Amino acid sequence: MTLKVHFKPTDIVRLADVKNASRQIRPYIHRTPVLTCESLNRMVGHNLFFKCENLQKTGAFKFRGAVNAVSQLNDAELENGVVTHSSGNHAAALAQAARIFGTKAHIVMPSSASSIKRKAVIEYGGNVIECQPNLDSRLEYAERVQAETGATMIPPFNDPRIIAGQGTAALEFLQQVPNLDLLIAPIGGGGLISGTCVTSTAISPRCKVIGAEPEGADDAFRSKEAREMLPQTNPQTIADGLLTSMGKLTWPYVRDLVRQVVTVSDEETVKAMRLFLERAKVLIEPSSAVALAAAFSPKLNSSGSDRNIGIILSGGNVDLDHLPW
Amino acid sequence: MTLKVHFKPTDIVRLADVKNASRQIRPYIHRTPVLTCESLNRMVGHNLFFKCENLQKTGAFKFRGAVNAVSQLNDAELENGVVTHSSGNHAAALAQAARIFGTKAHIVMPSSASSIKRKAVIEYGGNVIECQPNLDSRLEYAERVQAETGATMIPPFNDPRIIAGQGTAALEFLQQVPNLDLLIAPIGGGGLISGTCVTSTAISPRCKVIGAEPEGADDAFRSKEAREMLPQTNPQTIADGLLTSMGKLTWPYVRDLVRQVVTVSDEETVKAMRLFLERAKVLIEPSSAVALAAAFSPKLNSSGSDRNIGIILSGGNVDLDHLPW
Repeated sequence: MTLKVHFKPTDIVRLADVKNASRQIRPYIHRTPVLTCESLNRMVGHNLFFKCENLQKTGAFKFRGAVNAVSQLNDAELENGVVTHSSGNHAAALAQAARIFGTKAHIVMPSSASSIKRKAVIEYGGNVIECQPNLDSRLEYAERVQAETGATMIPPFNDPRIIAGQGTAALEFLQQVPNLDLLIAPIGGGGLISGTCVTSTAISPRCKVIGAEPEGADDAFRSKEAREMLPQTNPQTIADGLLTSMGKLTWPYVRDLVRQVVTVSDEETVKAMRLFLERAKVLIEPSSAVALAAAFSPKLNSSGSDRNIGIILSGGNVDLDHLPW
Repeated sequence: MTLKVHFKPTDIVRLADVKNASRQIRPYIHRTPVLTCESLNRMVGHNLFFKCENLQKTGAFKFRGAVNAVSQLNDAELENGVVTHSSGNHAAALAQAARIFGTKAHIVMPSSASSIKRKAVIEYGGNVIECQPNLDSRLEYAERVQAETGATMIPPFNDPRIIAGQGTAALEFLQQVPNLDLLIAPIGGGGLISGTCVTSTAISPRCKVIGAEPEGADDAFRSKEAREMLPQTNPQTIADGLLTSMGKLTWPYVRDLVRQVVTVSDEETVKAMRLFLERAKVLIEPSSAVALAAAFSPKLNSSGSDRNIGIILSGGNVDLDHLPW
């Protein structure tokens, strides 16, 4: 006779893990501020609250997960370094997290990655290894580095330590603004939205978690409609942090705990990014503007009683020589 | 026999006036936040504290003085409206202040004023009257409006109510960060720096007030060197808020209470503006970037013991279609 354990995929990360992560990373991260902007409130007809992870160290929420993962390595693992493949904010976050813990970060970056992103990784002390701009090449190079150095792989989102770390943003947010009716976060690989679901569902169950996606990279939206995980092929969007498909660990959160996925056009995203800079005077990257655009979207299912809308502004790393307007 | 009253020009506005202004304007203004940015601290080797008046209502500190002035008008004066001539932030600030107090603002703007600035004034309900782009035309039109409407003139800086209002920014700042060693503010007409001197000298006498000016509009610097008020002729700078000459009421503060005026090139200003957006993710206008550039300037007389430098970021109204890089 076997004992059946009823273990839902969404139980892989629990509130206790997020709280542990929060304690673990506290000495290293910023408790980012929550901004409000009256003129945006007037425009949208709700009270908007912005959790400014664009002001997080390394300019994105990614630093939370990276620090949480690296802080759990033992001495032998720290001796051998860490490795990841990323063209964006996870790369810079892991490089800086590794530096804090005195270890080496090997970052496999596609040759198509922007020179700004590459520069940031190098500035944080990361060892950049260039690969071809496709997933096969990225995985191949990362595995080769692992084999050669014994470095520990720290994936960008499909990892319980990463999800728990990203969930600390919503934990702080709901402490700073306890009475949110909606909480919007962008969906790329799903690390941020999954951590947000863990936290919000546990401590503020009546707050609805909304995912935001670009129309040109809408795997979460389509997957939720189909009730099965569909991959993102050939993504087309300026939101360069949201190109990737969800992972096996993050999809269940989107499927079961995200109330709605709102898709927005790149035009809406650019408009939101520019509006935020003009009115709130704060720079956000397109991947964050997707979440702001969702708050303005007629597609968003919000009722008259949904007055307080929280938005996680995921990052602020923008190439100022190539602003998208 | 006459009793001689020793009344220094710098006594025209006192700390009590600033404190009164602070009480008067409190319901209408933002208590703006103070930001810090570790990567800028590392670059400059000091602790920088940024008083974010770019996040003030109407996007600039000017709103403080305008509200303070308009709030002191009696019912008969409010009946007849207010008038000013300005191409910039004072125009928008006065329009919004007038709206709050239910009166009309007539704003004489040169035809050369940017369409963004004109749009802002109209959005705040101001009545824009176009004049030729020179001081004579501005004064002529403003006097004509005064004669026709009976409106009260609210000058942009050369007015005790305005100086007292602008001094409330430093009052908040020194409450938020009591141990500043240096306090840097830009000098245009001198309203902000004068109010800053009143406040800082009274409540934090060991804090040195530093003025920042563009090299191409350096009347305060030259005046201080010459010990007499010299006008600004033919100013050439991208810091469009700092083109004007000081007034008779503001010059004595610069002469007697400002420790040093640091001039910076437009190149340094643009670099500072861009750096702040890239690192702090916050948008400031060139006139504010002048003060940040002064903190980085080798001309700044700061000693090793000057560790905490406060900078008043005066505004954030920028035409995003014409960023200066």
